[in-house]
This record gives sequence, structure tokens and C-alpha cells, in this order.
Amino acid sequence: MEKIVKELKPFFEPNAVAIIGATDKKGKVGNVIFENFEMNKERGVFRGRIYPVNPKLDEIGGYKCYHTVGELPNDTDLAVISIPARFVPSTMRDIAEKGIKSVIIITGGFGELGEEGKKMEREIGEIARANGIRVVGPNCVGVYVPDTGVDTVFLPDNKMDRPESGPIAFVTQSGAFAAAMLDWAAGVDIGIGKMVSYGNKLDVDDADLMDYFIHDDSIKVVTFYIEGVKDGRKFIDAARRITRVKPVIALKSGRTEYGAKAASSHTGSLAGADTIYDAVFKQTGIIRAEDFEHMFDMAKAFAKCRLPRGDRVGIVTDGGGAGVMASDAVARFGLKMASLSEESLKYLKEHFPPHAVVGNPTDVVGDTDAQRYRYAIDAFVNDPNVDAIVVIVLFQVPLLDEMEVIDILAEYAKKSDKPIVAVAMGGKKTDYYARILEDKGVPVYPTPERGVRALAGLVQYSRYLERIKG
Amino acid sequence: MEKIVKELKPFFEPNAVAIIGATDKKGKVGNVIFENFEMNKERGVFRGRIYPVNPKLDEIGGYKCYHTVGELPNDTDLAVISIPARFVPSTMRDIAEKGIKSVIIITGGFGELGEEGKKMEREIGEIARANGIRVVGPNCVGVYVPDTGVDTVFLPDNKMDRPESGPIAFVTQSGAFAAAMLDWAAGVDIGIGKMVSYGNKLDVDDADLMDYFIHDDSIKVVTFYIEGVKDGRKFIDAARRITRVKPVIALKSGRTEYGAKAASSHTGSLAGADTIYDAVFKQTGIIRAEDFEHMFDMAKAFAKCRLPRGDRVGIVTDGGGAGVMASDAVARFGLKMASLSEESLKYLKEHFPPHAVVGNPTDVVGDTDAQRYRYAIDAFVNDPNVDAIVVIVLFQVPLLDEMEVIDILAEYAKKSDKPIVAVAMGGKKTDYYARILEDKGVPVYPTPERGVRALAGLVQYSRYLERIKG
Repeated sequence: MEKIVKELKPFFEPNAVAIIGATDKKGKVGNVIFENFEMNKERGVFRGRIYPVNPKLDEIGGYKCYHTVGELPNDTDLAVISIPARFVPSTMRDIAEKGIKSVIIITGGFGELGEEGKKMEREIGEIARANGIRVVGPNCVGVYVPDTGVDTVFLPDNKMDRPESGPIAFVTQSGAFAAAMLDWAAGVDIGIGKMVSYGNKLDVDDADLMDYFIHDDSIKVVTFYIEGVKDGRKFIDAARRITRVKPVIALKSGRTEYGAKAASSHTGSLAGADTIYDAVFKQTGIIRAEDFEHMFDMAKAFAKCRLPRGDRVGIVTDGGGAGVMASDAVARFGLKMASLSEESLKYLKEHFPPHAVVGNPTDVVGDTDAQRYRYAIDAFVNDPNVDAIVVIVLFQVPLLDEMEVIDILAEYAKKSDKPIVAVAMGGKKTDYYARILEDKGVPVYPTPERGVRALAGLVQYSRYLERIKG
Repeated sequence: MEKIVKELKPFFEPNAVAIIGATDKKGKVGNVIFENFEMNKERGVFRGRIYPVNPKLDEIGGYKCYHTVGELPNDTDLAVISIPARFVPSTMRDIAEKGIKSVIIITGGFGELGEEGKKMEREIGEIARANGIRVVGPNCVGVYVPDTGVDTVFLPDNKMDRPESGPIAFVTQSGAFAAAMLDWAAGVDIGIGKMVSYGNKLDVDDADLMDYFIHDDSIKVVTFYIEGVKDGRKFIDAARRITRVKPVIALKSGRTEYGAKAASSHTGSLAGADTIYDAVFKQTGIIRAEDFEHMFDMAKAFAKCRLPRGDRVGIVTDGGGAGVMASDAVARFGLKMASLSEESLKYLKEHFPPHAVVGNPTDVVGDTDAQRYRYAIDAFVNDPNVDAIVVIVLFQVPLLDEMEVIDILAEYAKKSDKPIVAVAMGGKKTDYYARILEDKGVPVYPTPERGVRALAGLVQYSRYLERIKG
């Protein structure tokens, strides 16, 4: 097994987790984390053992409570720490002595709060390095893995929802952002396979995680929210390795002077000149997101779509205005409008009524049925001049059988080697149909711009792969 | 009464509407439109009379059906036409003879479909001009006014939801887009006071509607989706008049070569050089939206917020990462970060624990309660260096009483003369609280970027007003 996999695996799939600072006081961080594991154990999702540690308690929720780290059983391979900052260094020494090699430090109040905190943080770092301990944190919400039941997110269920599993990994420096994002992902049905919030990034960093995710087959696309990178060389090398294998999307904030200043108050990150990050991302094939909607719009496309062979986009729509907006977006995001082959044009003219618009965009118009979509998608899929397809479905039009058009889209998305993304603008009914369509493997976007922009991400990555491999 | 108000009023509040092409065949356009009026009449919302017209029927749904336009009662002041295109010119002659002065032509198949259609469209135009008839359409979904029950949107309830009333007017060339947008607005609880879809824009155009909305007190902000303007001079003059009084937001597609080509197939619009539109919008104070999310993000801010006196933004957040993103957005959208006064800094340091970050952004941090928000918002509202405030509330944080922070925000939004916008990222629970907060008068955005971008729209309009009035 790769060294990095061996080192980081306990964070995602521990045999036994020690929860240091576990308590029975409802709502406290050490209680929420303990209950997360306990509940996931009950549900049969967490398969490891759970060892609460608290000097004042003998048991918590029916689990034997250990008074010290020293007393812990020897199979403990992950420690989650949520005790006040001043106790963390000595606990780290106990952990080192016990031989536990993976530690998540939830506790805040270190490097982000001035000199004394920084000193403690350095001390913890030295203990870790001297003993081969890998540390996630401090000042973080830790790790969330729905498949294995690891969940150190200390926000209770009544505060946030948790997303189901999926092929997207999400790594973030910011803890509150982690919580907000998980909650958001749950709300829009985006599956997150692994979430890591590393806070002050004392040890385990973006590069380590990229190296880990290379070997993680459950993860198809990796997303990062970062405010700054400490070891540029290490980051670049790891990025180059992973982007050969799977796409990486980064949302790097602190881009502007204002943002950089705010980032420095937040995680102590020195943001550095943003143009450098831009260059590094380009060089290493990392796709940069403008904001978190952009990041997850692209992640969804990567998770569900094949990569396009080129940048020539075909657009099918039942609303002319939406087709115009999508065409503008094709230009705005650096793609090309495909010129349909004579054969496609002839095929569509044969099958369409005269008031439908054959071309690119092809407008099946407002009185469309699902069958017109089938003809259009079929033509675009088979047209050698088309590399990628945007299908706009305004489900509101009166004669369209929603489930029929959904099945047609799903069928072609499955059998075509071209990426197909859908755009559906609307309200509750549209949301409902969009979920069904996504479950069947087609990513759906709420505006033409966001659909085309997601496709542009696929094109960018596809070009990068060609460049480094060709 | 202003001439334009007198002319267009029957479209929005007719005494009696003739539905030409009304039918009892479920799902047909002429049936859906009839049933819309019938249902709104039953609900007590539509207060006018309803006259279905169909040569083959004597009654529809208990309403007497007229066989010809000539038979219609003389109080008819609005005709809605949904009969095949080839019958429309002769019907227009009947309408002229009858003396009806307002006509919505839903029917498509005119100018957008080549020479013969264009000829018919010209003929209709000549009849209208010769008889002082104002026409909305053809090739459109017409008018939707929740307050008066006018609703020619021919998509039944099982296909789309309809938004409640509100201070936003929405005007669109594209019919399918109209339906999708109404449905979307309903889903996100954006109130639309008047929607007009004018399709091929044979007569009533953007300029007419701007002039009308000047005098419409129920409308606080006007939004347009346009693909092209026919009479530039008329547009500019009307825009200048209305933007002195209320904000106008335009989403103009066909910006790029690709988009312009698509627009020409769609509504036959000659998009013209986009830079000209940009210049016209700037000159006339119209705020240009990048896409429809941007348009309604701004519309919501205008509907709920006061205008800022300057461009200095203060940011309050409980998540550092979100604060960084918002700071970046302030730079990206051309605003300034406010430098808090010494007094504000002192006040906040006195009231905050040491691990909270006092400054701009002020980070009340993840263990915040609602009270910390009160201190921060209070300081920002009273600080002469702050013109506008972005309050980021990640509702996920454990100790925050959601309803308490909502009430604090609502209280300050009401009593302060500065605009306050909120940002809340998250899932279902966040959506729930965001709706409550919006009902209490504070616009809420799902990302820091969208919140700041909406604020930038307010700043832009405020500057325009200063320029023309100062």
C-alpha cells in the first residue's frame, strides 16, 4: 500500500476512534462528535470501535469511558481531540506514547489567535513529526465520510443536514464553510464521498490529500476551498500527479487585496499574489472556480459526464430566449458553437414541423413533445461536428411529457460518448424533475450560463489531459 | 390621466375581456386562458366581465359564448386572441370596427417564420395604427397581473406555479422564458406585480411599458429581458424618464456573435453591436444584468433596500471563509471595503470575546450568539464610514438562535438608512430561515458573491441618480 494511503486511511476508516473530550452534556462539541459516531454505529455504518475519553466520566451512552489516553485499548488508530487548547500539547504527548498515528484536532485557539497559540501549535507539530503522527487541524471541523460513518462535524442534526455519499471529495480550510457546504449539498442532492476540513493545516494539507485521493476509487473529482498554500513545491508536485488521473477543482479566495487581507485575519494565510496561483493552477491542470456555485456546478458535471473531445457545443432548446442566452454563454466561456453537418440539418428538417428552428441552437419550440427532443439529441449525438451537448428543457411547455423527455436524455447520456448537460429553469416542479434526471445520470443546471460554464470546465480539463499526454 | 396610462391600463385591469378562440377543450391554449380568468373571477380577484368568443359554441363553463366579435357587448376593452395566424388579420378588422382598443395576440407564426408571416404582421400593424389599437404580441404569452387576475399565460397549473404579487415588474420578449421565470419566481418567493411578454413586439414595446410603469405605484423596480430594440430613440427617451423615478434592470441577450445569431432566428431581432447597448444602458441609467439570477438578485435588493450613499461596504460574518469570499467580491464588483471608525473598533472590542475578529470583515466566529450580531450591525449602522452592509449568517453554527438573529437583522434593516443585505449558505433549514428573513424585509442571497453583486447594483443606480440630479 502507498505510504500516504496507509497514513491517511485511519482518518477515513479507523478501526477504533478515541474521542478525547467526549462528554454527555448535550450540544457540547465533544458530545455531538461522540453521538455522531454512536449513531452511525447503531445504523451499522460505522464499523469500528468507539472509545470516549474523559477523566471525569466512567461511561457515556453505554460506552465505557477512559480516563486517560494511556488507558485506551491498543487498537486505537484515530484520536479526535476536542478539549481546550492549553491541554492539547500534553495530550499529544500521551497520544505519541500510546502509539496512535492519526489525530484530528477540532479545538481552535492556536495559530489564528496570536503568539501564544502559535507557540502551542509549533509544539504540537514537533511532537507529531518526531513520532510520525499525522494531524488534521487544529481549528477545524475534521472529517465526514458517509460511507464509513466517520463524522466529526460538531453541528447537530437540527442545525444542518448531511449529504449522502457520492463521487465528490470536498476539502476546505474553513470550518463554518464546511458545515454550510455540507448542508447545501444535502439540500441540492449533491453526494459528497469525503469531506476534510483541515483548519490551520498544521500537518495534513492539500498535497497530502491529493496524493491520497489518487488511490481512492470512490472519488471521481476533488474540490478544494483554499485560502493559501504553505508549501508551493509540494502542492505543485501532488497536483501534477493527481490531475493525470482525476480532475481537481480549486476555489481559492483571497484573490484581491481586500480578500487577501481578510484571509490573513481568518486562517493566518498569506495569500500571495493571486496571479501566481492562477499560473500554478494552469500549469498543474487544476481548474479554478470563481465561486462555490461554480465549483459544484463543475464537480457535478465531472461526476456524471464523459469528457468532450473538443470545444464545439450543440444546443437544443424548447425556449428561444434560453437558446440565445446559452449561445452567449458559449462565447463568454471560450467555447465554440458547432456547425451541424448537412446530414443533421436534413434529418432534423425531415422530422420537424416548419415552425421549429433547425440549426444550432435547434429550437424544438414551445409546442414540442418529447419525441422532438429525441430527434434533436439523436442528430447532435451522431454529428461528428458536435463535441458536447447542452439540452435546455423548460418543463413548463404544455405538450411535453416530462418523464418521457427525462428518459430520452438519460438514454443518450448513457450511450453517447459525448457529454450531455441539461438546463431546466423553473420552480418546484422543475426541481422535482431535475432531481430525477440527475439520479439518472444527467447533471442539471438552473440557468443556461451555469450549464455552459460547467461544460467549459470539462473542456478545460480535457484539453489539459491532451496536452500532457499527447 | 397620462395618455400611455389610459392606453395600457386595459391590459392590466380590463373592464371586460373577450377571449377570442376560447374553447372547452382541456389543455388547449384558448381553454387555459379562459379558465385562468374564470378561476380568478371565482376567487374574487378578477373583477371584470369575461366574454368567450367561438363561432361553434354557445356557452363555455356557464359563460355565454359569442360567435363573432361583432356580437360582443360594448364594454369590452381588452381582446385576447388565440386563433390560428391566418385568421388574425380579419379578426383585427372586426376588433377595430367594434372599437376595442387593447389586444393581446397570443398566436405565433408571424414575423418569426418568414415572409408570409411578416406580411400578415404588417397588415395587423396597419389596422392597429389606423384605429388607435394597442397590441401586445403576437407570438407571446401576454400579461400576468396577480392583483387584478389578468392571466393570459396559457400554461396550466400542473405545468407551472404562479408567483404572488410584489413590487417587481418583469417584461420579456421570450414566451417560454416568461413561463419559466414566473415558475422560478414562485419557487423562490419573489413577488411579481406585473409580467408582460410581448413576443414579436409589433406595437407595445419596452419604451411604452417604461412610460407606463413610471405612473404605476405598485411597481418599485422594472426588469426586462430583451433581445433587441427596434426604435432606439424612443427607448432611450423613455429609459431616461423612468430611471429618474425607479430603477430599471435589463438582461439583454444576443451579446456575442453566437448569441446575436441565435436571437435573429428566435424573435427576428437584429441584436446590433452589443457595445451600443452597453453605452445606451450606461447613459440612461439602466442597470445591466449578466444573467437572470443577477437580474432578480438585484431586483430583490431594489425592492427591499434603501439606496446607499456611497460604495463603502461593511461585512459581518460568522464564517471566516465566507468573509474572505465577500471581501473578494467587494473588489471584483467595483466596491470599496469600509475602514471602520476608531469608535466602532473600540465598541466592538469592548463587547467581543478575544477570539472574535474586529475589523472589516468583522468575524463574530462560529461560537457566536445573536447578540454578537447585534453589536456588529449596530456598530456598522452607526459608523459614518460605512455606506452599505453585508451580513453573512451561516445558520449552522451551534449557539445561534435563528429567530433572534433574524429579528435583529429585520430591526436594523427597518431603522437604518443604509441598505443591509444578508447572505446565508446552506440547505433546507437555511432556505426556511431565509424566507422568514425576506418576509421581514431583508433580501437574502445564497452566496457572498451574489449578495455583494446585488449591492453593487444599488450603488450603481445611486451613483446614476446623483450624477443626473447633482
